[in-house]
Amino acid sequence: MQNKIVILSGGMDSTTVLYEVVHNYSARNTKALTFNYGQKHSIEVDKAKVSCDLLNVEHKIIDISFLGNLVGNVSALVTASDIDVPTIEEILGDPAPITEVPYRNLILASLGLSYAQAQDADEIYLGLQAQDEYSYWDTSSAFVDALNHVSALNRKHSIAIKAPYTKLSKSDELKIGKRLNVPYENTWTCYTGPDENGKACGTCPSCSERIMAFMKNHMIDPVPYVIDIPWET
Amino acid sequence: MQNKIVILSGGMDSTTVLYEVVHNYSARNTKALTFNYGQKHSIEVDKAKVSCDLLNVEHKIIDISFLGNLVGNVSALVTASDIDVPTIEEILGDPAPITEVPYRNLILASLGLSYAQAQDADEIYLGLQAQDEYSYWDTSSAFVDALNHVSALNRKHSIAIKAPYTKLSKSDELKIGKRLNVPYENTWTCYTGPDENGKACGTCPSCSERIMAFMKNHMIDPVPYVIDIPWET
Repeated sequence: MQNKIVILSGGMDSTTVLYEVVHNYSARNTKALTFNYGQKHSIEVDKAKVSCDLLNVEHKIIDISFLGNLVGNVSALVTASDIDVPTIEEILGDPAPITEVPYRNLILASLGLSYAQAQDADEIYLGLQAQDEYSYWDTSSAFVDALNHVSALNRKHSIAIKAPYTKLSKSDELKIGKRLNVPYENTWTCYTGPDENGKACGTCPSCSERIMAFMKNHMIDPVPYVIDIPWET
Repeated sequence: MQNKIVILSGGMDSTTVLYEVVHNYSARNTKALTFNYGQKHSIEVDKAKVSCDLLNVEHKIIDISFLGNLVGNVSALVTASDIDVPTIEEILGDPAPITEVPYRNLILASLGLSYAQAQDADEIYLGLQAQDEYSYWDTSSAFVDALNHVSALNRKHSIAIKAPYTKLSKSDELKIGKRLNVPYENTWTCYTGPDENGKACGTCPSCSERIMAFMKNHMIDPVPYVIDIPWET
């Protein structure tokens, strides 16, 4: 069997994909690839490490902090003018950035494809998920289809891009994770990062979506929140 | 007018594209983007700088040496077994590598598109050229077409990928450069790098192609060669 590469951010979507790929194939044939953006600490990257350790999956972390230099003048892209302009480190890799990182998923997929060829893999998996409240053009199934047409031109190596959740809501995706017993305490979604007690804010767009998905599934999110959440199981 | 981004390696193809774009638009609207691979010295990058200075074109150089870490085990890709295995620094960015860098042009184009959006550009230019003796799948016009279908999905920003020489021979491309008076002494093609006198080898596949193109156009290549070339004008 050829290897499978999972682009793993440490968020809910890509961690669920990782568990699904390991379930469908094997831990031995699965390799996770995480990008960090030069932060000293990143709870998402730490969570990604934990998941790979638990699953016994080979994990490669690649520093792509050069992106900050490439798209340095992101302030022009800021749309929410009453929010402080974030640093590039603050917004890159965030599931709900107030600025968009241009062509982010194309860049990450390209690097994933390159790694896949070097690792003799025939598939790369992306945790792209149809957001309920917002979405970028490069999270759509049309994006994945078009990128597969590019990769199909690779004569020597046949590598497909898979993004099984592009058409699923977060709560439908969570149903899959529930069946696979994904330990969601090892994922991080909150935009603002953990507070001094390691808690998520519970109010940012990403937290809101995540909490809603757990509620719809009558599940309790194991991640601790600063605010009280009226969980019903 | 929106900006134009030229991915500039410092080789013959991308330097000719740079001169053509500046000729068709303006130096003010043209921005060159060069990738280096962490080498201490690179004659190609130096040549790229000279061209941008001469043309008064803004020039950004981005270090993507992380690619060596990403596709570390390239030795598996080496096809010419009687040639010493090169380091990743030796082969990345080379026009005629004995190992292929997987998805190289997809990665570079993705980064170029990202930069283009940040710079409010509507076109990126690649110096891909139909090689006479060899070619990679990601230098073809089919590759460029497929990638344009990906980029066309970008709802907010319309950015086209242009690669005007994919269907031209090197000698036809050189005809364009001759009309534009491209000073080819400011380009570097040789795979092996300059010798202690700054001369190109004249015998590697890249040198061979370049010399042939100049000969077909009855031009003398201003780059000095170690071997005697029987130029006829």
